[in-house]
Amino acid sequence: MSGSNDHLDELCINTIRLLAADAVQQAKSGHPGMPLGAAPMAYVLWTRFMRQSSKNPLWLNRDRFVLSAGHGSALLYSVLHLMGYDISLDELRNFRQWGSKTPGHPEVEHHRGIEATTGPLGQGFAMGVGMALAERFLGVKYNRPGFNVMDHHVYAIVSDGDLMEGISSEAASLAGHLGLGKIVYLYDDNHISIEGPTEISFTEDVENRFKAYEWHVQRVNDGNDISAIENAVVNAQKETDRPSLIMVRTHIGFGSPKEDSPSAHGEPLGEEALSITKENFHWPQGARFYIPTNVSHHFQMVIEQAQQSEAAWQTLFHDYQKKFPAEAKELESAFHGDLPSGWDSLIPVFQTDDGPIATRAASGKVLNALAEKVPWILGGSADLAPSNKTLISGEKDQEKATPDGRNFHFGVREHAMGAVLNGMALHGGVIPYGGTFLVFADYMRPAIRLASIMGVPSIFIFTHDSIGVGEDGPTHQPIEHLASLRAMPNMTILRPADANETAAAWRIAIQSTSPVILALTRQKLPVLEPDQFPNIFEGVAKGAYVLSDTGSTPELILIATGSEVALALEAQLKLVNEKGIKTRVVSMPSWELFMKQPQQYRDEVLPPAIKARIAVEAAATFGWHQWVGDGGTVIGLDRFGASAPGSVLMKQFGFTVENVVKQAAALVGK
Amino acid sequence: MSGSNDHLDELCINTIRLLAADAVQQAKSGHPGMPLGAAPMAYVLWTRFMRQSSKNPLWLNRDRFVLSAGHGSALLYSVLHLMGYDISLDELRNFRQWGSKTPGHPEVEHHRGIEATTGPLGQGFAMGVGMALAERFLGVKYNRPGFNVMDHHVYAIVSDGDLMEGISSEAASLAGHLGLGKIVYLYDDNHISIEGPTEISFTEDVENRFKAYEWHVQRVNDGNDISAIENAVVNAQKETDRPSLIMVRTHIGFGSPKEDSPSAHGEPLGEEALSITKENFHWPQGARFYIPTNVSHHFQMVIEQAQQSEAAWQTLFHDYQKKFPAEAKELESAFHGDLPSGWDSLIPVFQTDDGPIATRAASGKVLNALAEKVPWILGGSADLAPSNKTLISGEKDQEKATPDGRNFHFGVREHAMGAVLNGMALHGGVIPYGGTFLVFADYMRPAIRLASIMGVPSIFIFTHDSIGVGEDGPTHQPIEHLASLRAMPNMTILRPADANETAAAWRIAIQSTSPVILALTRQKLPVLEPDQFPNIFEGVAKGAYVLSDTGSTPELILIATGSEVALALEAQLKLVNEKGIKTRVVSMPSWELFMKQPQQYRDEVLPPAIKARIAVEAAATFGWHQWVGDGGTVIGLDRFGASAPGSVLMKQFGFTVENVVKQAAALVGK
Repeated sequence: MSGSNDHLDELCINTIRLLAADAVQQAKSGHPGMPLGAAPMAYVLWTRFMRQSSKNPLWLNRDRFVLSAGHGSALLYSVLHLMGYDISLDELRNFRQWGSKTPGHPEVEHHRGIEATTGPLGQGFAMGVGMALAERFLGVKYNRPGFNVMDHHVYAIVSDGDLMEGISSEAASLAGHLGLGKIVYLYDDNHISIEGPTEISFTEDVENRFKAYEWHVQRVNDGNDISAIENAVVNAQKETDRPSLIMVRTHIGFGSPKEDSPSAHGEPLGEEALSITKENFHWPQGARFYIPTNVSHHFQMVIEQAQQSEAAWQTLFHDYQKKFPAEAKELESAFHGDLPSGWDSLIPVFQTDDGPIATRAASGKVLNALAEKVPWILGGSADLAPSNKTLISGEKDQEKATPDGRNFHFGVREHAMGAVLNGMALHGGVIPYGGTFLVFADYMRPAIRLASIMGVPSIFIFTHDSIGVGEDGPTHQPIEHLASLRAMPNMTILRPADANETAAAWRIAIQSTSPVILALTRQKLPVLEPDQFPNIFEGVAKGAYVLSDTGSTPELILIATGSEVALALEAQLKLVNEKGIKTRVVSMPSWELFMKQPQQYRDEVLPPAIKARIAVEAAATFGWHQWVGDGGTVIGLDRFGASAPGSVLMKQFGFTVENVVKQAAALVGK
Repeated sequence: MSGSNDHLDELCINTIRLLAADAVQQAKSGHPGMPLGAAPMAYVLWTRFMRQSSKNPLWLNRDRFVLSAGHGSALLYSVLHLMGYDISLDELRNFRQWGSKTPGHPEVEHHRGIEATTGPLGQGFAMGVGMALAERFLGVKYNRPGFNVMDHHVYAIVSDGDLMEGISSEAASLAGHLGLGKIVYLYDDNHISIEGPTEISFTEDVENRFKAYEWHVQRVNDGNDISAIENAVVNAQKETDRPSLIMVRTHIGFGSPKEDSPSAHGEPLGEEALSITKENFHWPQGARFYIPTNVSHHFQMVIEQAQQSEAAWQTLFHDYQKKFPAEAKELESAFHGDLPSGWDSLIPVFQTDDGPIATRAASGKVLNALAEKVPWILGGSADLAPSNKTLISGEKDQEKATPDGRNFHFGVREHAMGAVLNGMALHGGVIPYGGTFLVFADYMRPAIRLASIMGVPSIFIFTHDSIGVGEDGPTHQPIEHLASLRAMPNMTILRPADANETAAAWRIAIQSTSPVILALTRQKLPVLEPDQFPNIFEGVAKGAYVLSDTGSTPELILIATGSEVALALEAQLKLVNEKGIKTRVVSMPSWELFMKQPQQYRDEVLPPAIKARIAVEAAATFGWHQWVGDGGTVIGLDRFGASAPGSVLMKQFGFTVENVVKQAAALVGK
């Protein structure tokens, strides 16, 4: 073994390696190759650089570490165990088993030192960019001379898979543009992918590619040379104007018979190869999950040193609290997820005269009302701000020269935007939002899913939410998107019917502890006057509510969302007045919130006895059967749209009062 | 106006510009800025380089042109009109209107010269890579000395938005790696994005980034200098080992009062600005859709010249047919979408003893049986070939040195893979497939959607299709993916229950003229012996069928897909034998195919009178209500999975015989 001059360091690194290899072997499942190759860089980061504390894993100014190559989870768990985090040896033994704290890929648990859920490649890379953005924003906003209360790095280990994914390209270009100097990523450059050596598919010049993205790039030619790694990290820290990539030449499965082979990647070494590996590392044969005593002692010392850095910060923050009580309180509130008192005092109540107004426009007004009161709301759009209405007026752009800017220009980079929002939400201290057209939710879907899995409160503003988009045509008109997002566990989708429902939806989004999607119209809609519809605000919070009724038991229920609610109200008028059909209109902005209501409430809104139900939504009918039931009908759209003015499309595709009335009458038999 | 020395050229370019501007103005909707700025490069490409024929737009060796910046559709339509394609002036006048042939973004219509549907950024860039791959593969395979019957370029105009999207990064890295020298992309480098100048979000060094991707990069400093553009294209053609990017500095909205302004991008110029623009170009005021006579004449000449290149090829191909009749026939068959006789003769019929076998493994066998008979099937995986079982054994890798290789290594680039498949399918002459895990369908969803919109027969092989994935945990376990894909119009999803259903599914896929998704298991499943279940093959083709019945009218129907069919069969046994419940098992591999069956058949499989129905699928229940109805139940999974062995997860989440039996008995009341 070359490059490591210090026997104890080597012993520590080999302990990490073999704990990981043992965990994978015990599970009979997992990825031993990456931990064997990348252990030195993890060791260097955690023992020589990471300012964190296993006694207080939630310390808000801790350095963040992201294992973007999440399949190397055993590496992370081994390090966290040695660093005193709540990952016991039994948990390592229980790797990848039901109910364990050591799942196959890292799942965010801040109190265990796991900063992000990773595994889907590129996500960790991009979430780290979000963390660095949050850090810089908060630092500029809350630090005072002599009081750098927010001042930490974001470290990550990334793999060739991460760098091949487009999301990393987007995130790297953005991070370079913004000059996020606190980013220090180590690239586990092992030349091996699952299908073979990387030369079969990945021969680009990574160094110059990242330089072109305005990154600071270094190379370490021997991944076991911990001094070289250390020096590179020091240099990366010194470079404060550009993010840093350190390309570390490693060997997958280092020290095992499978070294430099794809077979080291995704399956246990096997007993025999594991035994040989231990022999190569002069490890006691037969021992499993073995930690030499001097290794334990060494890590104990590292843990204590690390805690001193936290203790020093606590002293600093204590003084900061005295000198800058308002700032300190605000910063803590922001991290705690509290909203300032009066946060909702500027939210407008829209009147008929304010309309007709598109829900995207109403959203812009509500967002600005919130942003004025909650200074840690920030975000932007993937180059569609004028359309998404995501601009906070009077605030600066987020740029290298104006890092306190709250208006982000993500560029045409939806996927990175999604992950950056997630990273900011994971970091804490900010409430992030990002906008694009609903149809382009597809571009960022893996990030949306990860927000749901992690349960982080990213806010996704998706405008142009139906064929109402009009002339831009089928590539720009969402059809299946509402269904496809509603099918995702743990996501809340709100499709408000007007400006006031939009305000109510924003109230939910801003207080949410899990991700929220707002689906908003391009086209103008009439305002539901609160005097006439007094239950809008509590109704939206319940996901669905009776918007308009006819006094006695209805014969028919029209269920609609978003832009189709106004249509349902018009149809109701005709049905009542012209056909004498007692019709209830239910506005259903959020299936998910409605499903969380008690059965009793749901039965009040949709009485089981009333089988004549029509759902109206300018989108795929997929999934609606569960609300209209066997006796009902769905007026939706199970084909792609077309290019024509939105109003023409609505007519052509049957979203007209006449069609609703006709189908309703047929259903009721009148 | 600088750079254009030839007055006629200038007149032609201005005709293109103003036809486009007039179309946008007439529609009161669209994107005039890009056509005004990029018209010279489109003009140069189409009049000096493009080997194509508006008399025979389907000529198989035509150069392909992709407008990746699809919002500039008016540019393409104007050029196509002038080049004699079936886009009349009336169609230009009808831009973006209901029923027109000139939708807001280009929609593929080969016979009108529109090679791809574009608009969602980056897709065109990546589809062009697929076209170039198909061209090279077919060229190597079918060309003979003196007979370069397949030998054309792929041109595109790409925008900064295209280059910001991650998919382009993936596709560029892949194209550079593979050395696709026939690619010539012109970058409309206008320095303007929707939110403002590109300097607010996009300051990377594009030139060096693309050099790092192994591209040949040139700059043209004046987008109106048609000689410079022409020279650059000539140089790009000379560079046969690397794809070419030509960075052309243009000015959005050139010649209009909105030049160099974001407001030129996405809205009509307005009557006044349009009038000034025409003045600037010395255009007759008042005239709309004006084409000077000498411009018409010039294009007529160009059209005739272009037809000569096709005529020369026809002569060549005629001789080729004589000298190489087998090759000629095969090439034509491949383009025609015919399969060779005996194409299915090697498809195995699986017997009980062949199992248990995972459907991914069965898929691999069937794919190989097909590939042996159909030499133009090709594809690969996004670095998961060993898991996806996508390798064609005995065939070469697709690499720069072996361009006849049928095994593609796409790298960890799912999104580019999806678009490359689409590009190959659009090109014709090949049947492309690509594999990844079902959960990572999310990474390529925009390409999947575009396949559906275009109706191209890309085959997506998505393995590891449920929590059966096991230890890799929730980030790797699809839950909502089946629902989210079923909600997409025009896509056919097949989730076969065993090896024989997999064979049947492949039969459908290989003959399909629209995209198909195969959802396949990681885990082994018993084989449905054809002797016992003789209707598998016709059943799968109908989407759902009665797999097992009890003779008389059933009391209960169990509907299952994929891995849960075996579970349903086991439960049926218990229900019949132990509970005396007459139970039918319906296998439903494809909702979409079933929905296409006549109502009578659907009622035979799922008799309306039988309300006791249970659907079993290890996935989100979303959408299943439509099949089980108000009286039914769904055994599914409406949460994310977990990390544990797959069999443990199946048990923990209720996919057990006991649970199905229990719920069935409760439903029937026995």
